[in-house]
Amino acid sequence: MKKNKWFIEEYQGSLSMGFKYNKVLFEEQSPFQHIKIIETKDHGNMLINDNVIMTCDRDEFIYHEMITHVPLFSHNKPETVLVIGGGDGGSIREVLKHQTIKKCIMVEIDEVVVRASRKHLPKIATSFDHPLLELKFEDGASYIADKKNQFDVVIIDSSEPFGPSKALFGDQFYRNVYESLKEDGLVVAQGESMFYSLDFQKSLLKRVQKFKYRTFYNYSNLSYPNGPWSFLLASKKYHPLKDFSKQRVKQAKLDFRYYNNDIHQACFCHPQFSKKSLEPFCNL
Amino acid sequence: MKKNKWFIEEYQGSLSMGFKYNKVLFEEQSPFQHIKIIETKDHGNMLINDNVIMTCDRDEFIYHEMITHVPLFSHNKPETVLVIGGGDGGSIREVLKHQTIKKCIMVEIDEVVVRASRKHLPKIATSFDHPLLELKFEDGASYIADKKNQFDVVIIDSSEPFGPSKALFGDQFYRNVYESLKEDGLVVAQGESMFYSLDFQKSLLKRVQKFKYRTFYNYSNLSYPNGPWSFLLASKKYHPLKDFSKQRVKQAKLDFRYYNNDIHQACFCHPQFSKKSLEPFCNL
Repeated sequence: MKKNKWFIEEYQGSLSMGFKYNKVLFEEQSPFQHIKIIETKDHGNMLINDNVIMTCDRDEFIYHEMITHVPLFSHNKPETVLVIGGGDGGSIREVLKHQTIKKCIMVEIDEVVVRASRKHLPKIATSFDHPLLELKFEDGASYIADKKNQFDVVIIDSSEPFGPSKALFGDQFYRNVYESLKEDGLVVAQGESMFYSLDFQKSLLKRVQKFKYRTFYNYSNLSYPNGPWSFLLASKKYHPLKDFSKQRVKQAKLDFRYYNNDIHQACFCHPQFSKKSLEPFCNL
Repeated sequence: MKKNKWFIEEYQGSLSMGFKYNKVLFEEQSPFQHIKIIETKDHGNMLINDNVIMTCDRDEFIYHEMITHVPLFSHNKPETVLVIGGGDGGSIREVLKHQTIKKCIMVEIDEVVVRASRKHLPKIATSFDHPLLELKFEDGASYIADKKNQFDVVIIDSSEPFGPSKALFGDQFYRNVYESLKEDGLVVAQGESMFYSLDFQKSLLKRVQKFKYRTFYNYSNLSYPNGPWSFLLASKKYHPLKDFSKQRVKQAKLDFRYYNNDIHQACFCHPQFSKKSLEPFCNL
């Protein structure tokens, strides 16, 4: 009989999530982090960086559809998209489904994550050889520092605001993101938990006050610690609801598993406690 | 230095949730289940029946506001409400905030849960002495069996569909619920996870096909296993969105922490995978 083990992630010294697994498929210390992929019992293969779950086969579609389709359908015609991070390949897989895309640039600091994902997360890492993809292994914060007026959408698909992703949450970084976007551009970023990191969410909103519209939108998956999680959205021109076209979503005919017209609108609704707390810094 | 321990709940033999705790406040084997209340490190006091987390101070408002305000604001004028289960007292606390209420009957099978909650969950068990409450310690399934045309809203605040709550998920029970409701009545029930129990959700929808409108609505809390969770709603007359009045919510001036007008509408939106799967059995 196969004996299962548990991978346990502790969060904020207060709670934990555990997943039963069969075996470790990959383990390597890169220059940036410790990378592990395990084969779980019921959640498919799972990517774990520095003991924090990044994604797994079973629920990755939630995160990846929400970090991409919400901004791409909020923009009128996204042609040039920059993804910072996203080494597992799920975000570019979704971006490249959009027929409007002419170029997708992905800047990932850690080549090992991509190599491991290509081998052990084949359902996620489907698009690294796509002809419209330009893949760069470098620091996203440095990459964006001298870019002006180039991108329609910037997607910051980062891990937590410590470790290799720390530079992707600072003031200067967000000033550079603003400059790198075209005059009708918008940015989306991994935004943590409204329950456990509300002060962090406020600090992130403070960094995008120069954008016309700014808010968090919400989702809930299986492999992040408990309850609702969020993405930051900041937009120079398009209002993600008023300028949103249900018709365009319908015509795109993408194979959504989580996202749809209803979800696009519902995800911008906030529970009363976070609404009250974030409202002074939001504009929507 | 205080040494914390972990309470770990395993779910479907596949995943686990853990909460750090300081001490056990209450532990007793009732005729129906094993009841435990622990003082957690960061989530307040936590009620655990048969090793399954029922509720905790930190996030109980999500569950209790969503199981009550959604149906009570979907009904035009809820006066007589039956709560089956809900031994911690959180649901009646929320029901009794509504000015329209003339009588709230709570039928809880296990007197020990109420006794333990009164002592160790004082923020939740606030309303057991409310003058409009009639509290009965008996089997909810038996209680409802001979009631006809009596209730505006029935709230089934049960634990999982096994153990002491098993009878609250059957065909005959739902036939009795239908009969117990007035001609414009509606019922809401704890509905498990769309991710881990989609077949169960389908089976529950099949039991309420006699109702005009039937669907699940969604929320996400910290103490149920991972991701979105749901409530069943079945209504004889009122459409929970088309007959919903934002004005009435505003005028009620309740001290919501989770629920609000936006959430009432957003919670009925389903991710594509569960929408497709449940749609044949829903009507909304």
